[in-house]
Parts: sequence; C-alpha cells; structure tokens
Amino acid sequence: MDTVRVHAPATVSNVVCGFDCLGFALSEPFDEINVRKIDEPVIRIAHKDDFGLPTEPEQNVAGVALRAMLDAMQADFGFEVEITKNIKPGSGIGSSSASSCGAVVAANHLLGGRFSDLELAEFAMEGEKLASGSRHADNVAPCIFGGFTIVRSADPLDIVSIEFPHLFATVIHPQIEIKTADARAILPKQIPLADAVRQWSNLASLVASLYKGDLDLLARSMDDFIVEPVRKSLIPKFDEVKEASLASGAIGGGISGSGPSMFMLSGSLATANSVAESIRSVYTQTDIDFNIYISPIGRSGVAIAS
Amino acid sequence: MDTVRVHAPATVSNVVCGFDCLGFALSEPFDEINVRKIDEPVIRIAHKDDFGLPTEPEQNVAGVALRAMLDAMQADFGFEVEITKNIKPGSGIGSSSASSCGAVVAANHLLGGRFSDLELAEFAMEGEKLASGSRHADNVAPCIFGGFTIVRSADPLDIVSIEFPHLFATVIHPQIEIKTADARAILPKQIPLADAVRQWSNLASLVASLYKGDLDLLARSMDDFIVEPVRKSLIPKFDEVKEASLASGAIGGGISGSGPSMFMLSGSLATANSVAESIRSVYTQTDIDFNIYISPIGRSGVAIAS
Repeated sequence: MDTVRVHAPATVSNVVCGFDCLGFALSEPFDEINVRKIDEPVIRIAHKDDFGLPTEPEQNVAGVALRAMLDAMQADFGFEVEITKNIKPGSGIGSSSASSCGAVVAANHLLGGRFSDLELAEFAMEGEKLASGSRHADNVAPCIFGGFTIVRSADPLDIVSIEFPHLFATVIHPQIEIKTADARAILPKQIPLADAVRQWSNLASLVASLYKGDLDLLARSMDDFIVEPVRKSLIPKFDEVKEASLASGAIGGGISGSGPSMFMLSGSLATANSVAESIRSVYTQTDIDFNIYISPIGRSGVAIAS
Repeated sequence: MDTVRVHAPATVSNVVCGFDCLGFALSEPFDEINVRKIDEPVIRIAHKDDFGLPTEPEQNVAGVALRAMLDAMQADFGFEVEITKNIKPGSGIGSSSASSCGAVVAANHLLGGRFSDLELAEFAMEGEKLASGSRHADNVAPCIFGGFTIVRSADPLDIVSIEFPHLFATVIHPQIEIKTADARAILPKQIPLADAVRQWSNLASLVASLYKGDLDLLARSMDDFIVEPVRKSLIPKFDEVKEASLASGAIGGGISGSGPSMFMLSGSLATANSVAESIRSVYTQTDIDFNIYISPIGRSGVAIAS
C-alpha cells in the first residue's frame, strides 16, 4: 500500500473557560486528504479546492508538517499530497490544523505507525507555526486525538484526552475576517487574580462535568469571564446568537478559536437542530453570509477513509 | 436518639494549582464532636481540649453554624455540643471547618437528615466567616462531602465531588503562626494572563488525572505558578521539604490552605511514610516544633462515630 485517504475534521479550541487549553473535534465538516508515498525525496502538494492556498511545500501547512516528519527520520523518500478542503481557511474551526494533522496521520499510516500520536502532533504544530506564527496545539490536539483534549503544556508537549458524554455541536461561521493578531492584541496582558480563580474553578468543574456526564454542571461551568467579554465585540450579534441558542435548549457555548465562528453544545441532535434554526433566524437579519454546521463531537479525530 | 458523636476530619484546601477551588479530606487527624438535642432553644458549647477557644455560641464556629441551622428551621429547641479538638487551630488544615462541619452534620443526623449536604455546607460557612472574615467553602466542601472537591462557586454555593485513586497525604504542621490576613495580603491582585493559562491548564489536567488514576499526569500537573512562589516565603524550609519529599517518591505537594502546614501526596502508604521521614530530617534541623500526619485521602468527610 502506498496511498491512503483520510478525513481530517474541524476542531473547536478555546472552549469557553478553557482558553488556550481545552478543545474538541467535530465529526464534520472534514477535509479529504490523499497521501502517496513516492521514491523521490520531495513533497508535492495539490489542492482540489478553490481557496487559493499555496502549494509550495514550504509555504503549505501540510507541507511543513510532512517536512518535519521526513526530517525526523532522515528519509530518502517523499510524499504527494492532494487536499480537498471543506473547512474554510480563517473560519476559526481549525482549518490549517486539519490539513497538517490529516497529512501527517495519513503519512504515518503509510509508514506502519512509526510515530506516536504525540510525535504527530509535534509535526503538525509546524503547520500551525506557519499559519499563525505560534507553535500551538489548541486545534492539533483534538484533531489528532479526537474528542475533548487538554493541552497541559505546549513545550514540552503534553496532551490529555478526557472522557465525555454524547454531545452535539452547532457551529456558525459568519463569513467575516478576524485576524488572529487582532484577536490576540485585544486580550488583556494582566487579569485580576479573582477573575482567574473564577475561570479555573469553572474549567475544573467543566472537566469534571464531562467525566460525570452531568450536563447541568456543564452548563453552569461554561462561563468565560476573561476572553469572551473582550473578543465578542469582534463578532456581530454574538450575544443574540448565544441568547437564542440557550433559549432553544443549548447547554452553553462561545467563540470557536479566535473566531469568527461560534459554537453551541447540546445534549441531543434534535436540540442541536433547534439551536441551528435559532441561530439562523438571528443571522438572516444581517447581510453577512454564513454557514452552519451540526455535528456530534468526534471521538476519532483524523480517520483513515480508505 | 438524642445524642450523636462524629469524627470531623482535617482538610487540605488550595491544592497547588487549585487555589481557592480544590480541596481534599484527610482521614486523620479528626476532631471528636458530641451533639445532643435539647428542649431549650439555646446552644451550649463545651471544649474538652486546652486550646482556649471561645465557648460563647456566637463566638464559636460550631455555635454560629448551628445557629444558622436552627434559624433556617425556626427551631424551638437547641443543641449541646462537646468538642475535643485534635486539629490544632491555625494549622492550615481546616481546624475551624472541622468544628463547624462536625457540629452541623451531627445535628442533621439527630434531625433525621432534614438538610442536604449543600445546605449543611452553607451553615458551616458561617463558622468560616467568623473564623476568617470570609464566607468561603474551601475546607467546608471536602470536610462535608469527603474526597476531592471543587468549589465552583461560593455564591451561589456549587460544590463538585470528583473521583480519585488511592492516595496518601503526608502533612507537616510547623508550629509557627501565619495570619490569614498576611497570607492574603502577599498575593498579587493582578496576574499575567499567560500565567493564568498555565495554571488552569494544570488544574484541568489535575482533575483529569484524578479521574484517570494517572499518577504521572498528576505529578506533572501539580505545579503552582501563582500562589506558591509568593507564599512559600512565609514557611521555613518550604523548598527543602518539597525537594526531600519528591526525592522520597512523593507525587507532588504544596502549601495546605494558607499555611503553615505543607502536604505531599503519595501513591502508597510506604511512600507516604518515607516522605514523612524525609520531611522530619529537614525540620529537625530547625528549632521549630512540628507535627507530622500520615493519612489516606478520606473518602467520607465527617463520619458518624456512634
């Protein structure tokens, strides 16, 4: 076997009180990525989509991730990659991460599983560095490990998978641009210790609620005193979306990544659908194009498709 | 039945990265508390120890906790309480909390379990307010619920019990005085967001490690970037105690409450004993009197003894 196809899912990072720490994988949307092992020691990237992403391997997130992998094994061979992106770049649901994670998981499959998931995450983080300037694992972790993940530390990399009950996400991607740099510049450098305590008490409870499968506790814990209050100003109708979602039975939600996408969690598909309808009625009042995705939390992360 | 005797255990709050949030109960030391229901609508407190604690009910932490309980039910009866304290006041292992929690749990037993654990915690918090000036639940929560607890919020009170593996604590109480006010005054009012993120990433991982029973992850997560670095200056030989404990196999540890006690966790009683010996060798080099306690994490909190 010298070719494999994977599905690399969208991911939500900065899950409310878990800024720079807690993320989860969706089941869809996902990018489709074909990787072929070739004898030549080169990387070739082709895109079967019209987002105009660079295909020079050193300018492509999948390319730099694979380069890190090949360098780690001093390989005398290479890979050809064909990417069909369904996750729009800049959406805030881990588009770059899907490309880089999908590529390295596929390549590792062709290599018989030579690298651990943690090593693959390290390679994929090179893609994040290219995309955002920072070598973070907020989306890489759930994209590779699946489910809910905690990034305890990015350096040294320490990723913790946590148990969780059946949950569904409703995601809206308003098609506006938020530059990651702007989203970071707006954050306070210093925060009151009292606010930090409230935040970490909520995060600790949120983790416990997932283990317990206690959706009431999850709802009470999904509160962000620090990041959401400043970043929501970048996202039109954030408060209305959240209010309408909660009124439709959502457990809670917030900004996905650094936006502009927003996500809401529900305990059933029926509720996730109702939440989608509520969000749709809020956003059709604007002149902003938007996509809505409804998906269970993905347990598997990047999955071999064939 | 009009009399009951309970054991009210010592508790550790501010568990490393879980400042103002995470606590656990010990099995020992514990206070012994007898409560008798009487027809007169009064509270009488007697102490069978020589700590010189006030016995006027409105000046005694058990007295004010019972008063809150009696007021909540507009009772026309009262209680007589006899307390034998084994937990030294001011030790930083929840001495006041043991008195107030023990009293209300015992009284509730005599009333046929009329109040929920959460209501009992609310009553006991009146004792904490008398003792420290702030209505906190950091020690009350583990003292009543047992095991490891998260105080998600003190107002409204929200306490989360979390699962945990077999663990043993070694506690040293150096007999010096640290005023809670001083321990609070030394804390920064503002902290860098980046430090807060590291702290809550560790706390989230710590909670997950307890559910997983992953002692390596627990060890990596037991790191406090915010409180310990400033408060440890109040505790002689803090760094030496910690280093010696880790060298003897402790998983990790830190300051108990606002000190002066320190605690270390171990995965077995044998290791907890070795840790105790290491700590003893550090502290015998000082001229400070000290007590060392070795105890499993207490699963039950306040327990009916007869």
